[in-house]
Amino acid sequence: MEYIPGGICAPQGFKGSGVHCGFYKDENKKDLGIIVSERLCAAAAVYTTNKVFGAPILVNKKHLADGHAQAIICNSGIANTCAPNGAEIAEATCRLAAEALSIAPANVIVASTGVIGEPLTMAPFQQGIDSLVSNLGDADENSQAVAGAIMTTDTVCKEVAVNFTIDGKECRLGAIAKGSGMIHPNMATMLSFITSDVDISPEMLQRALSDDIDDTYNQISVDGDTSTNDMVVVMANGLAGNTEITGQGADYDEFCEALRAVTKTMAMKIAGDGEGASKLIICKVKGADTKVNARLISKSVISSNLTKAAIFGKDANWGRIICAVGYTPGSFDVSDIDICLGSEAGQVQVCKKSAMVEFSEEKALEILKADEITIDIDMHDGGETAEAYGCDLTYEYVTINASYRS
Amino acid sequence: MEYIPGGICAPQGFKGSGVHCGFYKDENKKDLGIIVSERLCAAAAVYTTNKVFGAPILVNKKHLADGHAQAIICNSGIANTCAPNGAEIAEATCRLAAEALSIAPANVIVASTGVIGEPLTMAPFQQGIDSLVSNLGDADENSQAVAGAIMTTDTVCKEVAVNFTIDGKECRLGAIAKGSGMIHPNMATMLSFITSDVDISPEMLQRALSDDIDDTYNQISVDGDTSTNDMVVVMANGLAGNTEITGQGADYDEFCEALRAVTKTMAMKIAGDGEGASKLIICKVKGADTKVNARLISKSVISSNLTKAAIFGKDANWGRIICAVGYTPGSFDVSDIDICLGSEAGQVQVCKKSAMVEFSEEKALEILKADEITIDIDMHDGGETAEAYGCDLTYEYVTINASYRS
Repeated sequence: MEYIPGGICAPQGFKGSGVHCGFYKDENKKDLGIIVSERLCAAAAVYTTNKVFGAPILVNKKHLADGHAQAIICNSGIANTCAPNGAEIAEATCRLAAEALSIAPANVIVASTGVIGEPLTMAPFQQGIDSLVSNLGDADENSQAVAGAIMTTDTVCKEVAVNFTIDGKECRLGAIAKGSGMIHPNMATMLSFITSDVDISPEMLQRALSDDIDDTYNQISVDGDTSTNDMVVVMANGLAGNTEITGQGADYDEFCEALRAVTKTMAMKIAGDGEGASKLIICKVKGADTKVNARLISKSVISSNLTKAAIFGKDANWGRIICAVGYTPGSFDVSDIDICLGSEAGQVQVCKKSAMVEFSEEKALEILKADEITIDIDMHDGGETAEAYGCDLTYEYVTINASYRS
Repeated sequence: MEYIPGGICAPQGFKGSGVHCGFYKDENKKDLGIIVSERLCAAAAVYTTNKVFGAPILVNKKHLADGHAQAIICNSGIANTCAPNGAEIAEATCRLAAEALSIAPANVIVASTGVIGEPLTMAPFQQGIDSLVSNLGDADENSQAVAGAIMTTDTVCKEVAVNFTIDGKECRLGAIAKGSGMIHPNMATMLSFITSDVDISPEMLQRALSDDIDDTYNQISVDGDTSTNDMVVVMANGLAGNTEITGQGADYDEFCEALRAVTKTMAMKIAGDGEGASKLIICKVKGADTKVNARLISKSVISSNLTKAAIFGKDANWGRIICAVGYTPGSFDVSDIDICLGSEAGQVQVCKKSAMVEFSEEKALEILKADEITIDIDMHDGGETAEAYGCDLTYEYVTINASYRS
């Protein structure tokens, strides 16, 4: 398996496009994107667990009931949540895209991200659809155009692709994502669209995605707020020509490994570009008694405002970290915890057997100056591991969210 | 019942004192406090639920096993958590105070707040104990001295007292508290000491406290981080002369009502003085299907970083609020939610039946300029109510916690 350029256009048979259609005032901000496969795909999705959710999710659940889709259309700027006629507009958007692409409306997936509660009208979609379709292409810049069209407060375009071999055939998986704020368990303000040319049944595709996200997208937190709109959608069109994956086995494992490479990369890019973030924080827990506890502990640490603010301040305040371990829900032993802080500048142990240990503050400062900080925690309580992905808490986060609507 | 001055010295027979003994470098910062009753008290406590907890908690559980105490000694600056010889030092502190007061060490409660992991030594206690005891007095300034001695990043001294009548006798209840950061469910970095001259059995005192905190101290959140050290302790010495309260009934209800007045006031003072806070946020939920859901929903809203940042920015972004309602754990109906924002400047409805409603942005801005903001949520799903107390998320919060140890 190797990383390749191309994002969601890397797999055979996928095209993308992104344009400005008017949801944002700034004409240079793309706000409408589309991804199309040249043939019908097996498709699977996971959605936010928020009880208040965007109208597109209702529509997608219906459209994906048969496990197939061929296109994804998405706008940024307005979330189509708690807004008048939300479901009607989401359906109309699918029809508009379907007509322009000459496919069935039920094979179109729709997504929206942005402000909650503002009304969404069809006018911008109608205005943008022609140039959106005429700009379709399969170059890396097309993938980036879609990625750009779903960005809100994101500062960098997030895409990745890999190639790998299944059944002797060269296969590809690509993804784009938007993240930024409101990113916490279970698909918070995060949209990620994944494409592949692997031939896989809808059932196995859903299973692969559902199993994967517990260790990737669901281990991200930017601010603990779980959004109303978010989803991960994967479409696989089978153009790689492998024998269809319809059950477990080596081919399925290859696919899952490639999927993990893509989703883990996206998770780190999303966390590292969290709203106002200056640093990516990766918490790696080992020695936990159960997998669930390992996930919860690592997630608890990267979700802690106090830990996040300390890392922003390059302050090796490990008390904040062990405190977050301690308030993790569940039952486990906290008497023999080791904590190390690391980055490209080295590693320093700051806590041993749940107690202070002498360390060089200069060394710790040097380590914490890096852009990517690793918090390694050994629970000495079993053999399970997990990782979680977060970011520091900065002045900029406050600035962005104090005036998000303006 | 009426509010009176005096804090923890308002009830008969209680004295307090606070001095600087050296945990902080600044000689003007009091860092050692003591509260003493002239006779043995019924006593009860609740503690942090963090699995990593300070050594004082271990000692207090032992000392309070018989339901009685006579004094509380507390330092700020170092938390005595994850530190060498923590329990020995906590025990030695009790012995030191007991000797100076000529009472039994087992009747002394000990508390520490401050940095986790740093070693605590007896030297500052030994240096401060004489002046601590010689400064004991029962004036309001004595209560304030103790309150000042437990402050860390608190910016204001927090005390309250009420008087009321039980069994024809005038009774008093007083409290001090420290709060600030790391305040979230279940006794996060919060210390609160409550005194009363009511005659009540240890069992009923514990019951009153345990029942009360679910609607007061446990409904505060500053940043979602549950601390390792925190506790609420109540001591009642019986000097009011009422017939001892040993069961439920009118007298017990009077006591609980006074306790609620004191703890609710403290909860609001703690939330309003959250680290870096510029505004107190009170979320009042009504029409919930269960009491637990009402509590969880209100707590979820005031805990949301996005809501907190929006309130800081005077931005009536109600989408953040309904989003936080939606990701509250549990099962309930979200289809008919009304949301109003209010303050001394008036009230404005921003969401009706879970959807947008036209409102004046100017009016909303005027309302959000106030120091105390109320978010009223009607779930239209039943008859249960609850309140929660939080604060906005500001630049200052980040500043404080980026360099807490320095």
